[in-house]
Amino acid sequence: MEPSSGQMMPGFEHPMDIEEFRQRGKEMVDWICDYYSGVSERPVRSSVEPGYLASQLPRSPPQKGEAWSDIMQDIEHKIMPGVTNWQSPNFFAYYPANSSAPGMLGEMLSAALNVIGFSWIGSPAATELETIVLDWLAQLLDLPACFRSHTPEGTPSEGGGVIQGSASEATLVALLAARTQAGAAPEEAHRLVAYGSDQAHSSLKKACMIAGISHCRSLPAAAANGWAMDPKALEAALEEDKAKGLKPFFLFAVVGSTNTCAIDPLLQLGPIAQEHHLWTHVDAAYAGAAAVVPEQRHLFQGLHLVDSFNMNAHKWLLTNFDCSPLWVRRSEPLKQALSLTPAVLRAKGNALDLRDWQIPLGRRFRALKLWFVIRTYGAEGLQEYIRHHIRLAKVFEGLVRAHPKFEIAAPPRLGLVCFCLKDGSREQNAALLEALNSSGRLFMVSTDVGGKLILRFALGATSVQQSHVEAAWQQISQQADQMLSQH
Amino acid sequence: MEPSSGQMMPGFEHPMDIEEFRQRGKEMVDWICDYYSGVSERPVRSSVEPGYLASQLPRSPPQKGEAWSDIMQDIEHKIMPGVTNWQSPNFFAYYPANSSAPGMLGEMLSAALNVIGFSWIGSPAATELETIVLDWLAQLLDLPACFRSHTPEGTPSEGGGVIQGSASEATLVALLAARTQAGAAPEEAHRLVAYGSDQAHSSLKKACMIAGISHCRSLPAAAANGWAMDPKALEAALEEDKAKGLKPFFLFAVVGSTNTCAIDPLLQLGPIAQEHHLWTHVDAAYAGAAAVVPEQRHLFQGLHLVDSFNMNAHKWLLTNFDCSPLWVRRSEPLKQALSLTPAVLRAKGNALDLRDWQIPLGRRFRALKLWFVIRTYGAEGLQEYIRHHIRLAKVFEGLVRAHPKFEIAAPPRLGLVCFCLKDGSREQNAALLEALNSSGRLFMVSTDVGGKLILRFALGATSVQQSHVEAAWQQISQQADQMLSQH
Repeated sequence: MEPSSGQMMPGFEHPMDIEEFRQRGKEMVDWICDYYSGVSERPVRSSVEPGYLASQLPRSPPQKGEAWSDIMQDIEHKIMPGVTNWQSPNFFAYYPANSSAPGMLGEMLSAALNVIGFSWIGSPAATELETIVLDWLAQLLDLPACFRSHTPEGTPSEGGGVIQGSASEATLVALLAARTQAGAAPEEAHRLVAYGSDQAHSSLKKACMIAGISHCRSLPAAAANGWAMDPKALEAALEEDKAKGLKPFFLFAVVGSTNTCAIDPLLQLGPIAQEHHLWTHVDAAYAGAAAVVPEQRHLFQGLHLVDSFNMNAHKWLLTNFDCSPLWVRRSEPLKQALSLTPAVLRAKGNALDLRDWQIPLGRRFRALKLWFVIRTYGAEGLQEYIRHHIRLAKVFEGLVRAHPKFEIAAPPRLGLVCFCLKDGSREQNAALLEALNSSGRLFMVSTDVGGKLILRFALGATSVQQSHVEAAWQQISQQADQMLSQH
Repeated sequence: MEPSSGQMMPGFEHPMDIEEFRQRGKEMVDWICDYYSGVSERPVRSSVEPGYLASQLPRSPPQKGEAWSDIMQDIEHKIMPGVTNWQSPNFFAYYPANSSAPGMLGEMLSAALNVIGFSWIGSPAATELETIVLDWLAQLLDLPACFRSHTPEGTPSEGGGVIQGSASEATLVALLAARTQAGAAPEEAHRLVAYGSDQAHSSLKKACMIAGISHCRSLPAAAANGWAMDPKALEAALEEDKAKGLKPFFLFAVVGSTNTCAIDPLLQLGPIAQEHHLWTHVDAAYAGAAAVVPEQRHLFQGLHLVDSFNMNAHKWLLTNFDCSPLWVRRSEPLKQALSLTPAVLRAKGNALDLRDWQIPLGRRFRALKLWFVIRTYGAEGLQEYIRHHIRLAKVFEGLVRAHPKFEIAAPPRLGLVCFCLKDGSREQNAALLEALNSSGRLFMVSTDVGGKLILRFALGATSVQQSHVEAAWQQISQQADQMLSQH
């Protein structure tokens, strides 16, 4: 089918022209509004079986274009049954993945402009807004001034922020900067050692695998200090490894671990890391958002001692996935680890080519959604939002503590409450969880800590209210009563 | 500002409730339609100076939330001057970054659901649709059947596809799989050697830097074979390196180089790579889309000999950034290189946890937009689209060839025409380019090949028509006439 003349209008105009997009776009906005209005009624965890979709879709692409109405019908009938509704107020699994109205508007605009901000000239606004908004967010989180791109007087500093796609990428990028700073020759690379607690996020191990760092030491965290890293254990490991001729270079500290929201003691770890010339990276993927409220900032004490700090605005700060800000005290090692300048990309100025701060070359205009969120909510709105969730977690904690058959299984922190059946076996807790999750009325996940299987009630869905927490608890306690009465 | 009761409605409901989102979302759709209607009138390359935005925005975030209308005003007045309009039909720089109506609708829906598909249960539809749609795309591109997740009869195969964020990530992931397959011990890693031509995308060097591979050999490509890799040069390098005790493990071949759209000869390279047990990765970031038309498939001959293949649907296949499909013949080395399974993520089934096929843990529901694009256009619509652009490039090539002061500077291929002033100096070509780009009426970039600075006319913006190509040529030739008459 050869085009016959210049009259054809492919691309945007064809097969869907601007006027049809106007209509379909507005219908999609209505669909989204309907979705959010009714999401609390949808099963939270999808109940399909693996492979469910293959039998419902053709094995081959269509030869001719299809009507939009047919596609949208498939969304409701074929796709939605396989969606786990992270935006349900009854979603208490993993950690939250916040969506918000300004976040979605930001995604719409970003998709429409569809600029590729690998270099400054690729769209100056994309690079510059990102830097400015991360300076804003650094202030909202009360980060040490060294993490801002400019001093309060407006002078460029050595550090700054960049939006990564995920905390895993932030970890990798920080590890690579650390490796560069350590200056090990290639044939010495296998002597490098990275450190984290056994509660550290798996991204540490993955980053080590990727970077070819074979020594990734996992230090046992103990229940006694709330599953946080023990500074003495770190010191001992450092001495031991140095005695073996190894070269410690990287400390991965968590503020808010994945399992139990444990907080590594930065104030004690920082000086040790500095003494041994380690690059300290702080992973506060979930908990970082809590730094917007002054009463939680004690969890972050010691940030003046670290080299990089990461949080996911896409977890608990209302910014649609993906948006994982990373701040570094000094950007030079990062750029040294990641910069190349092929001729085709050379363009006006070299100021802030953010490709040199990340793994990929291309990058979306993600600053827009974060800017929209911060401006729409304002500092006070964000604080109110975080406090609301922390208060709801307290409500849930109180319900657990007041129940004779349950107990708190790790120190509750921020929006996370870990709990389990008192004297319950591993199997009983697992069975309780599965019964709850398969009801579709709520979704939680379990984790293993200290050899026990415990349940995690992770609070932070954008629209969760006290009524949802109370309803969840009613489900949980009734299911447990029913289960235990059968034995 | 403590919340006073459970009556507050934070998150989605506050400060922007569903009804306001309905209104603002539809206004945004209108804004987008206006943008596309008028984008050809906007300056293509932004003309702001570095730092332009800082002076226009507050240095600190607002204390109270702001009205949406104020935010949207800033979009037009402060952001848009700093946007380089990749969606302009007068954008001929780099390679295209296609947006389309179904692509944008996919982004809207994906942002609304905001599911995190790191594991199958995170949203079964996200994982399963991705696998199915990449099987569709593999058929559209006529890839060897081994790259599909299922045989035509529906039996699971050893290979399959995954959507990466960018070609750089695809390169890195393939390199890591290759390293795993090579099975070098950590202390042997510094002996590994990766190979590419000096026309290979910079992502090869970056991947090597990240993975700690210090030997990344860049083989000189020659003008004589259209800047493609010379199989003899590869063979010689392999023998030389093996004689030195090094361990070749990875071949990076390009189908459509960044500089000139050069095509490495897969049919000749493949057997050499196989003999030396190299993992061959094919980077067809831009050119890959051309495989939808049978008459261009000769460029891809030899894919049955390679291990992985990558193209960017976000370049020339109408799918908004980011969408970079990667197919592998065998997924096992990939998973072995990248898989961990932390307890908190363990859930029902382990089928196709796509986190094990990529660097990040989290992932967006990117298959939706690709599915929307393929269904809306159909195979024939996509073919018509690609042919339209290739035809326009021929028109441009003809204009260059017919002009006495210009010459073609590299073999024209697909949508790319490299040209320069005949007998023009480096400075003259650069001055011509800057004069054109600063006019705002079109945007191209230059590149260095064989010691010459040449101009790249990269055709592929979604809405480009013959009239834009003719107008661009008029600009270019008039500017050249004017410049040359002044000397």
